[in-house]
Amino acid sequence: MHGKAPRWQSSDVADASRTALGITLPARIERIIFNQVTPQVAGGRLAAKAVVGEEVPVRACVFSEGQPALLVRVRWRMATRAPSEGWDHLRLRRQMNDYWIGDISFGQIGEAEFQVEAWRDEFGSWRQDYRRWLRAKVDPSQELQTGVEIVRSGAALLPLAARTAIEQRLEQLGGQPPPSLQNYLLSVSTARRMAQALVQSPPARSSRLPVWVERSRALVGSWYELFPRSEGSDGRSSGTLVTARSRLPGVAAMKFDIVYLPPIHPIGTTARRGRNNAPLAAPGEPGSPWAIGAPAGGHTAVHPDLGSLEDFRGFLRSAEDLGLEVALDYTLQCSPDHPWVTEHPDWFDHRPDGSIRPAENPPKRYDDVFPLDFACADWQGLWQACYEILEFWIAQGVRIFRVDNPHTKPVPFWAWVFNRLRASHPEVILLAEAFTRPALMSELSRVGFSQTYTYFTWRSTKTALRTYLTQLTKVTADYLRPNFFANTPDILTEELQLGGPAAFRYRLVLAATLSPTYGIYSGYEHCENLPQKPGSEEYWDSEKYQYRPRDWNQTDSLAWLITQLNQVRRDHRALQQLRRLHFHRTDDPHLLAYSKHTADHSDVILVVVNLDPQKAHRATVRLAWKQLSAHPRASLRVHDLLDGTSSTWTDPRQEVELDPVKSPARILWVEQ
Amino acid sequence: MHGKAPRWQSSDVADASRTALGITLPARIERIIFNQVTPQVAGGRLAAKAVVGEEVPVRACVFSEGQPALLVRVRWRMATRAPSEGWDHLRLRRQMNDYWIGDISFGQIGEAEFQVEAWRDEFGSWRQDYRRWLRAKVDPSQELQTGVEIVRSGAALLPLAARTAIEQRLEQLGGQPPPSLQNYLLSVSTARRMAQALVQSPPARSSRLPVWVERSRALVGSWYELFPRSEGSDGRSSGTLVTARSRLPGVAAMKFDIVYLPPIHPIGTTARRGRNNAPLAAPGEPGSPWAIGAPAGGHTAVHPDLGSLEDFRGFLRSAEDLGLEVALDYTLQCSPDHPWVTEHPDWFDHRPDGSIRPAENPPKRYDDVFPLDFACADWQGLWQACYEILEFWIAQGVRIFRVDNPHTKPVPFWAWVFNRLRASHPEVILLAEAFTRPALMSELSRVGFSQTYTYFTWRSTKTALRTYLTQLTKVTADYLRPNFFANTPDILTEELQLGGPAAFRYRLVLAATLSPTYGIYSGYEHCENLPQKPGSEEYWDSEKYQYRPRDWNQTDSLAWLITQLNQVRRDHRALQQLRRLHFHRTDDPHLLAYSKHTADHSDVILVVVNLDPQKAHRATVRLAWKQLSAHPRASLRVHDLLDGTSSTWTDPRQEVELDPVKSPARILWVEQ
Repeated sequence: MHGKAPRWQSSDVADASRTALGITLPARIERIIFNQVTPQVAGGRLAAKAVVGEEVPVRACVFSEGQPALLVRVRWRMATRAPSEGWDHLRLRRQMNDYWIGDISFGQIGEAEFQVEAWRDEFGSWRQDYRRWLRAKVDPSQELQTGVEIVRSGAALLPLAARTAIEQRLEQLGGQPPPSLQNYLLSVSTARRMAQALVQSPPARSSRLPVWVERSRALVGSWYELFPRSEGSDGRSSGTLVTARSRLPGVAAMKFDIVYLPPIHPIGTTARRGRNNAPLAAPGEPGSPWAIGAPAGGHTAVHPDLGSLEDFRGFLRSAEDLGLEVALDYTLQCSPDHPWVTEHPDWFDHRPDGSIRPAENPPKRYDDVFPLDFACADWQGLWQACYEILEFWIAQGVRIFRVDNPHTKPVPFWAWVFNRLRASHPEVILLAEAFTRPALMSELSRVGFSQTYTYFTWRSTKTALRTYLTQLTKVTADYLRPNFFANTPDILTEELQLGGPAAFRYRLVLAATLSPTYGIYSGYEHCENLPQKPGSEEYWDSEKYQYRPRDWNQTDSLAWLITQLNQVRRDHRALQQLRRLHFHRTDDPHLLAYSKHTADHSDVILVVVNLDPQKAHRATVRLAWKQLSAHPRASLRVHDLLDGTSSTWTDPRQEVELDPVKSPARILWVEQ
Repeated sequence: MHGKAPRWQSSDVADASRTALGITLPARIERIIFNQVTPQVAGGRLAAKAVVGEEVPVRACVFSEGQPALLVRVRWRMATRAPSEGWDHLRLRRQMNDYWIGDISFGQIGEAEFQVEAWRDEFGSWRQDYRRWLRAKVDPSQELQTGVEIVRSGAALLPLAARTAIEQRLEQLGGQPPPSLQNYLLSVSTARRMAQALVQSPPARSSRLPVWVERSRALVGSWYELFPRSEGSDGRSSGTLVTARSRLPGVAAMKFDIVYLPPIHPIGTTARRGRNNAPLAAPGEPGSPWAIGAPAGGHTAVHPDLGSLEDFRGFLRSAEDLGLEVALDYTLQCSPDHPWVTEHPDWFDHRPDGSIRPAENPPKRYDDVFPLDFACADWQGLWQACYEILEFWIAQGVRIFRVDNPHTKPVPFWAWVFNRLRASHPEVILLAEAFTRPALMSELSRVGFSQTYTYFTWRSTKTALRTYLTQLTKVTADYLRPNFFANTPDILTEELQLGGPAAFRYRLVLAATLSPTYGIYSGYEHCENLPQKPGSEEYWDSEKYQYRPRDWNQTDSLAWLITQLNQVRRDHRALQQLRRLHFHRTDDPHLLAYSKHTADHSDVILVVVNLDPQKAHRATVRLAWKQLSAHPRASLRVHDLLDGTSSTWTDPRQEVELDPVKSPARILWVEQ
């Protein structure tokens, strides 16, 4: 602004850069550089992730030659909004080394975009220099007239009334002694006016970056898995979707948000696996629900033992009445008895002898499962059929899917699925069961999975947890949302096998407080910890291969702790976000201390966990005081949300003792 | 390859990604993902840097769904090469977490490009699985026929003779017992054949990334600054370019590569600064050479006191005869007496009263210097004129410029200058004197400066040096080449002021061995360490404002050490590269140990420096043994390049004692 500036500013920095790199003299130049604008995924080719209402931190390195004052803003809007509806704006705050930050948030689901914009602030630079002359006691009054000129040309950009007022004031001050003019030019109100004027001139802008905004449940939720066939079973015959409905009030009472069902489809009989993964099932054994498909139907059918599609809809309604959402399994593989095997033999991989190659992961072979060949000649037909499974269950009312082994299907298949879903069903959430290498796990999240399983179950030391959570909250948070399952049917960690109920308790606290989304598989509350064999992470009597009715009135259940944790999660917004996590130092290797807070620190939770299920530990926690409050405070009032006690702390060094027999953790709400 | 694969592969992964993100089914899909391909600058919009013959590490995260074997290569070529001349290729090695690495190198200067290419290796996957079955003692012979089919379809891609041989061999083996066939399929030669076949099929490719290849001097060199007016001066009158030639043999004897001259142009008389930066010069004082321009001429004139343009060319010739290159200063600012002030008053910034605003950095004002306004109305004329200064001196034979304060000129100006230079004079090297904030310093290197000044002078503790060097060698090395000046006329650090000759010695060792380019300003060899005033980093009797003749035969000069260090730098390729630097642990905070090596470890140098100029320190160095040799070795033979002693080490823990009075460091060549 102010005379010279507009000539330099262009509406698209990328265009300007291209021009500047031409050998002929550019027509105009962008003097402001935007680097490392985040959130940004794959250079802006893929969308960053947000949920409605989430405080999304925007950060950019913005600078120009010399040391000019800059005014830096972010602007953002829904991509679907009519151009006339305009953008939201927020002025960014300057940090060290030319970084600028601020938090934005989106009000609806769908595609959104943002960009950072900046101005060289001629008035701000003048003011800054003028004050430096003053501080050095060098008379700067010869600079006053320059200030007046800048204010005049700024005023020209303001509405007539404001402009006239400024001009009159300058006229008036012209006749008065210099100190009056100086005071006027250095006043806060003049600075504010000039900032208002500046943003009327064309800014320099970073490229536009896309954000995909989902509903809140994509980020925040407590998951509970159950096998409907176990609920109401006597151990020998199948429970049904009707009997399983009786379990829902118990799940709702524990304050879970999502009930996840393993596949509910017909199960193949060919090469069906028996109890404890025996190669062949005995008569009456139900088989693994992941061996999908039988004469009764494939991925769009309900297992006859479980009931009908109408029963499933009834299950959904019951859940909904209790405030629970149902997540279905989406497993793209077939049993040898799946209708596709005869209808579309070309969708499977064949051996030279013409037989279909079963799933194998040498030295293991799974004869009850045929993988689909996503690279077969008719891959387009196969992909379409796979997508239609989702459409079918969405039509029944399902909005969340837990996707089995997505990392064995081509990434472009998922990219295509997400583009269809986002266009037609933006409220649908897909959780990736991507237990694979870090690069592929990340890539699946980048192309669109709302959430992913993680390595959390195997991170048990203080260092491992700190390192992993730092990665998840600081490095990948713009596109990867972790779902911290404390266990799965395949993952009973050595820690849970050997640590007894105390291990189950503290792992539960970690999962529920470190990640806004977490979950357990049924049986966790009973601390089931028998492995299939020593050294295995599979369960003995795994529910994957048999009915597992349980006595939900068992007195030593962890339901009380789960309920308490889920209630704390619902009450505290600090736990409903991923990024703002800080680890505090403790002088015992088994005591882990961390706090989470909302962007404005209106909600702050501090957690101290004993990672040793065998022994009590005592430590001094050195609290990073300013993480716990937005404003400097001499004392903090903290409330223990597990035992109801309160204290006032004046010392950032606090002694904490945790005995695993009594309590796994302290979860403290820091009053603001 | 092999039947199905080609359908999936496209020649441009970027195009394929766009297709995959369309909602309609893509025509074909890229199953291989390329992430984080480096060297890559600004997403490939700007070129990474290399010099001829440099071993440039290429790294990429390459993966596909599932766990297939991959074959990954990098291909590269000069962009100017005719398409028929083809590409160089190198197979990359697999590292942890799907990273692939290898080193490439370019044979000529100019624009080059590279890209990573990969294939899903069906035969490799088959072989890998087959061996896993064998290891698990599960009979895999039913898989033999699949192997035969893959080999057959691979053979179809080979030249007729090879193909026929394979087919005949398979025919023959068909009649023999299975073990023969199995041995054939698992043999190294079959694997090699199949890899040869695989690369005949169309690969998946990352996008092409640009590299700007410069001559070796852009990365490697020892700089020596001298003021020609001091050489041959009696302290009251000016030395000349003719008398300064007498100093060149001495500089060449110290094995320097570059002689850098501060501005040699006419110096303004208006507001000329005097000795020790006095506001006004006394009669006969020469003024600061950075106040460029007088009636005798501006940036393309030689100061009459120094001689003529012909004298300058004579100076260049003398230097060249001694194997020295001359670097000129390129300072885009004017004294009030510069011809441009009257010819182009519009190229300067004016106060409201019409006067030209001098350089100021409140609370300092430099009345002897007028900055140019790169945003003035006639900026195109100004830019062109600035560029023509370079062309003028290039025409005289100058190929290296040291650019004063580039960070006060718009970045796009530099981008444009580099595009012109690269097109017309690709051998020209520009060093940025960019003492500015990290973001802007980096950006100037990104847009094209071959080298930059750094914060090295202010990094003195072990931690600070490790952190900074890790940044320079691991994070920014693809575009930023540091020039480690041990001092400058403006930077006499407190460490040098207080540490005496021992401080000068060890800083010299650090500069010369940590960075492939380093330098000193004349007087460093005499350990001149008087500050202008306490707390200042300016020199007393700074050469910027007066003649400083020196007695180069002074006996306590550091010339002996400088000569030794420069000789070591010339003899050892490990010191002629930036990236391969490793810090070894020592148990004393004052002893810093590091090694550098070539990509193939054919040259390895280990340095231990005492950072305390006041006291002897003794420490155990825990050597990372594998950094010191490409192959496992029980013992290492090391030769001290400073004192000529040799030893044989069998223990990775070595005691080192360094007494600053005796020796600043040990510089050891590790024999391979």
